[in-house]
Amino acid sequence: MACVGIDLGGTKILALLVDGGEVVEKYKQPTPRNDPPETILDAIAATAREVDPDARASRIGLGVPGPLPAGSGILPFASNLFGWNRSVDVAQELSERLDGRPVIVDNDCNLATLAEHQLGAARGVDNCLGVFLGTGVGAGLILDGKLRRGPHGLAGEIGHTFVDFRAIRVCPDSGETSTLNGQRGELEEYAGRNALEQQARKMHNQGMPSMLIERAGEAPLKSKLWKEALDANDRVARQLIDQAADALSAAIANVVNLVDIQLVVLGGGLASRLGEEFRQSIAAGLAARAYGNAHVPIREAAFGAKSGATGAALLAEEQPA
Amino acid sequence: MACVGIDLGGTKILALLVDGGEVVEKYKQPTPRNDPPETILDAIAATAREVDPDARASRIGLGVPGPLPAGSGILPFASNLFGWNRSVDVAQELSERLDGRPVIVDNDCNLATLAEHQLGAARGVDNCLGVFLGTGVGAGLILDGKLRRGPHGLAGEIGHTFVDFRAIRVCPDSGETSTLNGQRGELEEYAGRNALEQQARKMHNQGMPSMLIERAGEAPLKSKLWKEALDANDRVARQLIDQAADALSAAIANVVNLVDIQLVVLGGGLASRLGEEFRQSIAAGLAARAYGNAHVPIREAAFGAKSGATGAALLAEEQPA
Repeated sequence: MACVGIDLGGTKILALLVDGGEVVEKYKQPTPRNDPPETILDAIAATAREVDPDARASRIGLGVPGPLPAGSGILPFASNLFGWNRSVDVAQELSERLDGRPVIVDNDCNLATLAEHQLGAARGVDNCLGVFLGTGVGAGLILDGKLRRGPHGLAGEIGHTFVDFRAIRVCPDSGETSTLNGQRGELEEYAGRNALEQQARKMHNQGMPSMLIERAGEAPLKSKLWKEALDANDRVARQLIDQAADALSAAIANVVNLVDIQLVVLGGGLASRLGEEFRQSIAAGLAARAYGNAHVPIREAAFGAKSGATGAALLAEEQPA
Repeated sequence: MACVGIDLGGTKILALLVDGGEVVEKYKQPTPRNDPPETILDAIAATAREVDPDARASRIGLGVPGPLPAGSGILPFASNLFGWNRSVDVAQELSERLDGRPVIVDNDCNLATLAEHQLGAARGVDNCLGVFLGTGVGAGLILDGKLRRGPHGLAGEIGHTFVDFRAIRVCPDSGETSTLNGQRGELEEYAGRNALEQQARKMHNQGMPSMLIERAGEAPLKSKLWKEALDANDRVARQLIDQAADALSAAIANVVNLVDIQLVVLGGGLASRLGEEFRQSIAAGLAARAYGNAHVPIREAAFGAKSGATGAALLAEEQPA
C-alpha cells in the first residue's frame, strides 16, 4: 500500500511518498508560517499532490509542530507557526482538501521518535528519547516499548522544559510574572534555530561581528550557515552553539533522572547539519551531569532531517483511519 | 496480616506497625547518617524491634533514599547517607538482623508515591507525580496507573534534575568540568533541607543575621524552625524558601511538559511543615511556567511525613517476598 508522510515544520514542509516500505518520491517547500491556518493547510495539500500527483496513496500521515489533545487530530496552537491563531481540526480539514482520503495526525517529534524506534537508531531499545532540533526543539519518549503521549498530549515537549529557573520571577505579593530580557528559561530559547538566530542578531547589533549575519543579511539563518560559521571559528556562532549544547545536556540529563532511559537519538535539521562534534559536546555535558550508574549514549538519528516524515508515513501505513 | 513499614530518611528512621490496614504503632529515631552501612542497618533493625517487640509482622517493607537497580534490594549509594561507602544488599542484610523474616526494599519516594496513589491524595489519578521534601528532594511517577521505576531504577530522581544549566561548565578543549561555587544546578541544591541549611549558614557567616542560626546554634536546622523563621519574616529564611519554591516550580513544570501528568502530590517533612503558603507559592510558579492547556493542581500529601513508611508497609503487605 502506498502512503504519503508529511512533516509540517516551522521552516519547511517535507512530503514523502512511501510504497512497499521504500521512499519513492520526496518534495519540500517553505512553510508559510506567518499565514493563517487555511493557507498552511493549502500548502500541505499542495505538497501531498506534488509528491503523489496520481493520488496513489490511500492514506496520508501528518506530523505537526505542537501538542495534540490525546487521540485527536486537532491542533489548538503551535508556537513556531506564527499565524496559527485558532484551534483547527487538521485531520478533517486536510482530508477535505485531498479528495476525502483519511489523514492521520500526530505530533511531529512523536512521529520522528516512532520512526527511529521502529526502523532507525533506536531499534530494539525499549526506553529511549528522541530529541529533534529544527526551528524549535521537540522530543518523543518511548517507555517500555510504547510511545508516551500523555493525557493532554504534552509528553515529550522538552523544548518547553526549564533549564534556567531564575528567568521567570513571580512577585510573591501581586502574583505578577516577569521574565529576564524576555526569556523564560526554556530549552528552546537556547537551542532552537529560531531563538539562536534572534540571539545572533542581537549580539551583532550590540557590536559583535559575525559572518552569520554578514552572509545572510535579512534572510533566515539556515543550519548550513551555522555549520560554516562554526568551522570558520566565528565567535558568535561558537558561543551560542556551545550554550545550546550545554542547555541540551541539562535537559537530557533531566529526562535520564526523571523517567530513566537507555538511549538518546539526536536528529532534526540543525543537529544533522552540526554533526558529530556537536553530538559529542552534548554527550560530554550529559556525562558531567550524570547521577547514579546510568551511562546513556547519544546516537545520530538514522533518518536525519527525515525522521518526522518517515514516522508520518509509518503512522499512515499502520493505523486504520 | 501484620507488617512493619520503615522509611530510612537522611535525618530520621520512621517505623510503622500496620495491622488490618491500620497503623497500630509508630516509632522513630535519628539516622546515624555519618556511620557506615552496618551501623545504619543495626539502627533500622532496632526501630523494627521497637515498633513491633513481639515480632507480629511477618514481613518488613523498607524505603531507602537512593536508586535501586530495578528489581533488586541492593543500594549502591545514597547521597544523603554520608557514611554509605559501598554497595549493600539491604534486603538480605536486614533480613538476617530480623530472624530471617522477608524484607522488601524500594526507593523511599517510589513508596511514598505508591501510598498516595493507592490510599492518599492521588487516589484514582492515573498519571501523577509525588514530590517529597526532606533532607533531600525525591519523587515518584505514576504513569498510566503504574509506578515507573525504569531500567536503572532511576525514575523519579527529580532532586538530581537540573534547573540551572549554567552551574556546570565543561571545558570544550580538556573536557574538564567546573562548577559554580560548588553547585551543579540540581534541584536538591535549592530545595533540600540539607542544602538549605548550608546556604543559610553561609549567608549568616557573610553577615546576614538570621534567627535560624541564632536559635539552632550548631544543631541541625529542623523543618519546624524554618516555618517559625518564615512566620517571623526572617530575611534569610524568606529568600531561601522563595528560591526553593521557584526551583521546585521549574522542576515540576519539566515533569508536566516531559511526561504529561494530571496531578502533583507534595509531601515530606519539610513541605508538610511549611504548609499551605509554600504549596501555593509553588503552584503560582508552575502556573507561570505552564505550556499548552494542562492545568495541573498541587495537593498536599495525605500521609504528611509518613507517606514513605506507609508505602513501605503497603509493599510488604502486597508483594510476596
